[in-house]
Amino acid sequence: MEVNNRYITITNHIQGSAKESDFELKVVPLRLSVEPGSSKVILKNLWVSIDPYQLNRMKRYSSSQKTIQSAVRITPGQPIDSPGVARVLVSDDPEFVKDDLVAGFVHWGEYTVAKGGMLRKLDPEIDLPLSYHAGVLGISGLTAYAGLFEICKAKKGDKVFVSAACGSVGNLVGQYAKLSGCYVVGCAGSRDKEETDLNSALARYFPDGIDIYFDNVGGEMLEAAVANMNTCGRVAACGAIAEYSEGAKRAAPNMIDVIYKRIKIQGFLVTDHMSLHSDFLSTTTDYIHNGEIKVQEDISSGVESIPSAFIGLFRGDNVGKKMVKDCR
Amino acid sequence: MEVNNRYITITNHIQGSAKESDFELKVVPLRLSVEPGSSKVILKNLWVSIDPYQLNRMKRYSSSQKTIQSAVRITPGQPIDSPGVARVLVSDDPEFVKDDLVAGFVHWGEYTVAKGGMLRKLDPEIDLPLSYHAGVLGISGLTAYAGLFEICKAKKGDKVFVSAACGSVGNLVGQYAKLSGCYVVGCAGSRDKEETDLNSALARYFPDGIDIYFDNVGGEMLEAAVANMNTCGRVAACGAIAEYSEGAKRAAPNMIDVIYKRIKIQGFLVTDHMSLHSDFLSTTTDYIHNGEIKVQEDISSGVESIPSAFIGLFRGDNVGKKMVKDCR
Repeated sequence: MEVNNRYITITNHIQGSAKESDFELKVVPLRLSVEPGSSKVILKNLWVSIDPYQLNRMKRYSSSQKTIQSAVRITPGQPIDSPGVARVLVSDDPEFVKDDLVAGFVHWGEYTVAKGGMLRKLDPEIDLPLSYHAGVLGISGLTAYAGLFEICKAKKGDKVFVSAACGSVGNLVGQYAKLSGCYVVGCAGSRDKEETDLNSALARYFPDGIDIYFDNVGGEMLEAAVANMNTCGRVAACGAIAEYSEGAKRAAPNMIDVIYKRIKIQGFLVTDHMSLHSDFLSTTTDYIHNGEIKVQEDISSGVESIPSAFIGLFRGDNVGKKMVKDCR
Repeated sequence: MEVNNRYITITNHIQGSAKESDFELKVVPLRLSVEPGSSKVILKNLWVSIDPYQLNRMKRYSSSQKTIQSAVRITPGQPIDSPGVARVLVSDDPEFVKDDLVAGFVHWGEYTVAKGGMLRKLDPEIDLPLSYHAGVLGISGLTAYAGLFEICKAKKGDKVFVSAACGSVGNLVGQYAKLSGCYVVGCAGSRDKEETDLNSALARYFPDGIDIYFDNVGGEMLEAAVANMNTCGRVAACGAIAEYSEGAKRAAPNMIDVIYKRIKIQGFLVTDHMSLHSDFLSTTTDYIHNGEIKVQEDISSGVESIPSAFIGLFRGDNVGKKMVKDCR
């Protein structure tokens, strides 16, 4: 059987901010069968997560910029992989059979052809919305969990600051920290302020200083956080949304602060912390069942809504985790 | 018995670069006796170490700058403590008797009144120059050792970059790294170059990228090091000499590099790593005895030479560890 697979791709490597014309909807025939021995799985995508980090994979880089390894770059015309939830249609992987529900990396489109090893079978007994597995119980949640507990070693009494606190990751960082007995303040959408304002605002909210900064934005907010940090403060560098677009001012944290206060600034990617997954999943599922973690989602429908959903992230359009459903 | 104690102090908190007029020689009478029960020790200073970090303790800060805790600030008119080697004249500490040789913190002057607990008795059997205990076997050496092995976990095969490689710390970082089987490149005096030059220079010296950067300078060199760093690279932030003077451009390392390459930038102070001291001392003494570590010192004489010795550090006048002897 053959279907038309509709998916979103980029038309070119993006310069500056993303705009609608950087994206196109492609329609490509797809045979719903897999070669024996290929270990491949064909999925019907149910939920697709929309995350700001994808912009880094889409951007144009000069040949000397080695930041983003070519393996993780997105090629114009090709499907874009992204956290999501899907149903198995056809499988050559013995781990999966037709109609299994899975979470993992799917494409921004109707169908995904994947290797089974990258997918996690969902327990149909878990009475939580399927979409959660592409967000709070997926990559977003594990990112918050790994950054806060593994990179920053958050413990009771720590004073925690988190930026982009309305986003999918920041929102959970705040909730995890509070549930661990930390004092938490978040910020959102304030990255246009003057540095001096940020500095004194943080001094007001943190009269006893900041122990942990979970950084999703970079830029002047990172500078202000470092200036207000306590001895042995820790920064989990998770995102730098204020620095993603071209010409943006980069963070220049005061290195004399970093040295004298023995501050650690550590970048991390969630894919290095998959060993935490089962701990994270049981902890978070319990929190949600007990009503201790509130999940906020911002949902659009249909493959064609993906570009505007993505572009909206950088305008702060979304409240909570941005998701697209009904990719058909 | 009473003597005249001649010591160097600052006349005011320093703005911008240090200049001769920021310093003065004070002469104050000192009774060579200690009260019973005071645990005090009076020392005749033999060797005094001259280190750039002192500028941070001397600088003027606005009231909102909380970087340098008031406890470590230098007060105009007061003696300036500094690593050094001395002879015990009088002691109320049972650990020390007259004529013991000690290493630890002494004053920029002829005599020091200290608490015995901060001093380390030197073994008269060690057949190394006394001055080494104020440099390679003292704070400078331990700083290099702690930053390289404790903060950066240097191991065989690591590609190591060190700035201010002619300074007392950088010089030893390079030697330790080489002795541990690392590939090492150091830089000195090149902080005025354009960032693009630094980037391509580092790319040329490190075709396989940098694993460890021991940072003594901050500024654009830190930016270039981060740009050329490998995945899971580590930066030991030890000094930021390029940022010490007022109006200097602060380092703005690319946070997207920091995140995607999971780079750790960690500030440290040697005083947090005193537990390494005995390991460090036996390792380094062996290296020196075997001729595997070469010690380079740059020596001036007399208390009155201290201000110009200090100011010269920021002009790169010294080659090797700057020391002042014969403080009389």
